[in-house]
Amino acid sequence: MPLDNPFYTAEIHGDYEMHSIGRFELEDGGVIPNLELAVATYGTLNEDKSNAILIPTFFSGTHQLWHMAYIGEGRALDPNKYFIIVINQIGNGLSTSPHTTDDASIAMSRFPDVRIGDDVRAQEQLLREKFGIEELFAVVGASMGAQQTLEWAVRFPDKVKRAAPIAGTAQNTPHDFLFTQTLIDAITSDPGFDGGEYSSHVDVADGLRRHADIWAVMGLSTEFWRTEFWRDIPAPEGMEWNTAEEFRDGFLRPTFGSLDPNSLLVQAWKWQRGDVARNTDGDLAVALGRVTARVFVMPIDEDMFFPPRDCEKEQALIPNSELRVLNSIGGHFGLFGFEAEYFEQVDRHLGELFAS
Amino acid sequence: MPLDNPFYTAEIHGDYEMHSIGRFELEDGGVIPNLELAVATYGTLNEDKSNAILIPTFFSGTHQLWHMAYIGEGRALDPNKYFIIVINQIGNGLSTSPHTTDDASIAMSRFPDVRIGDDVRAQEQLLREKFGIEELFAVVGASMGAQQTLEWAVRFPDKVKRAAPIAGTAQNTPHDFLFTQTLIDAITSDPGFDGGEYSSHVDVADGLRRHADIWAVMGLSTEFWRTEFWRDIPAPEGMEWNTAEEFRDGFLRPTFGSLDPNSLLVQAWKWQRGDVARNTDGDLAVALGRVTARVFVMPIDEDMFFPPRDCEKEQALIPNSELRVLNSIGGHFGLFGFEAEYFEQVDRHLGELFAS
Repeated sequence: MPLDNPFYTAEIHGDYEMHSIGRFELEDGGVIPNLELAVATYGTLNEDKSNAILIPTFFSGTHQLWHMAYIGEGRALDPNKYFIIVINQIGNGLSTSPHTTDDASIAMSRFPDVRIGDDVRAQEQLLREKFGIEELFAVVGASMGAQQTLEWAVRFPDKVKRAAPIAGTAQNTPHDFLFTQTLIDAITSDPGFDGGEYSSHVDVADGLRRHADIWAVMGLSTEFWRTEFWRDIPAPEGMEWNTAEEFRDGFLRPTFGSLDPNSLLVQAWKWQRGDVARNTDGDLAVALGRVTARVFVMPIDEDMFFPPRDCEKEQALIPNSELRVLNSIGGHFGLFGFEAEYFEQVDRHLGELFAS
Repeated sequence: MPLDNPFYTAEIHGDYEMHSIGRFELEDGGVIPNLELAVATYGTLNEDKSNAILIPTFFSGTHQLWHMAYIGEGRALDPNKYFIIVINQIGNGLSTSPHTTDDASIAMSRFPDVRIGDDVRAQEQLLREKFGIEELFAVVGASMGAQQTLEWAVRFPDKVKRAAPIAGTAQNTPHDFLFTQTLIDAITSDPGFDGGEYSSHVDVADGLRRHADIWAVMGLSTEFWRTEFWRDIPAPEGMEWNTAEEFRDGFLRPTFGSLDPNSLLVQAWKWQRGDVARNTDGDLAVALGRVTARVFVMPIDEDMFFPPRDCEKEQALIPNSELRVLNSIGGHFGLFGFEAEYFEQVDRHLGELFAS
């Protein structure tokens, strides 16, 4: 029986549609008997189906932030020009997920392991079967969305004309794996987690709080905290933050505390193992050498766990690519869009990519 | 009754002496009825007592690493030239600590809060009363030892002729506070911690493991992990590491897992609140402006939580100072001395400081 969690509702998330692609066999051997993907679209698909932009989602996120902050008239991601399809990743709480499925065989702790490649295959199938889309004008994704973006470009080179991986890598790094493991352990070590069989995410409040507190250290930057940049971020109505701890407690803890633990764990496991070289017997250079899309690799300068130098090494292996470093004092969470200047940069680079 | 923990013994630590400085009143209101400091000395104090170098210790560390890796004939810290005194910080497991005291009023969870300033005052008293030392040729310390080094230079400007704070700050940063809190929470969230009243550190093995795993992410650098630098670090006899996880499990987990939880917490609380501006009504510039010692501020380039730019901002406020950035792929744990080149740099800078 699906758990009650008000975060994963249309009230919070605005319009989206559930599309079933049926039984889905996963790369690691598991099966999702009826995989449903939550899809939000903006704009209109043109007649020759040449204006579709796919956006896969990041860890803990949904289509919502893309809708609210990245997509808009006059922006690079302009629904007047493009048919923009945001597909929520498997397990993210809107697409089929451990706590929302009514299929007991995959509910809660029985949810199978999902790979980045599974998401990309599912998305490809959905686009083809439901929308008749055989080629993407572009794929744009951030963080785990960047992992999926690069997996798309490697796995389906003929289908991706442009790709913009933001703040993410094609092959997850060892440091990143260990970092993600601390997020996982913060949750699973909570006795309330009960091996994944909790009866409400609230039972795991302590673990989710520790998970959020690690994000405070790694998700933002030392400069964000030193300059007290959080003072520039408006607090929700009825709330204020006057210290770093109050910002952490008022922003990060509620943001992550409202999420489902098993959903986060499915995504974290997937994130840890993102690796396009799985398509080429472990050879990263061969995998990235396959890419025919025009690619702008866009790390964030202050990112603590997808540092620009890691992204640059991969970019050098992608034939038709450029490195476009984004500046954000927010570090990885610059993705949330704390600064107008961040969006100006994103729009400028995406605009140039889309015009090329 | 002191807990049994084989780590905190002379078998592990080599020679040191316990010196009592009697009843000690702490800045935050607590009292240690009989404060004993564990002291290791190397070399001979000269007649005019002008060759004394003080080394305060870092988080989780003791005099041992200094003895084994930093002090030696022909090195900058040469016991043939200097009288080198390593004083273990309060609560570190050798000096008076929660799990080693036989005074029930301060045992375990009842141990009082200790400040960096308390350590420095206790060290000053000890040097004066036991050794008749009124002036230090130099103070050298890393990490929390750097905090104490800078506190010395601010609090006792007439007593410190040279200071070398390595990989640490005078005023702890907000990011660093939040990072340290994740270390604390990893330990205290273990049900075996039992509010600090565990009967053996082994009861807190899970918490200590998570604590070590967070260190794996923040203590080392992304480059350390990316380049698999751990392959160059010899494994102890009978052990080997062929993956990043094996190195973490074989090195970091045992290193931190052997330590006492309450001891780590006393040190972590102290670390979080290191701030020389407590001496000057919160004005950091005034505090650092007081320093008369010649100071080399020595951050490590890959340090994830005492980044060079933070140290440089403080260095600019110290009158007679220079910034000397150390290179180490080890990040903060470069302090452990994984690389011969690291020690060459340390010795070169210290040698120059000592000659000035």
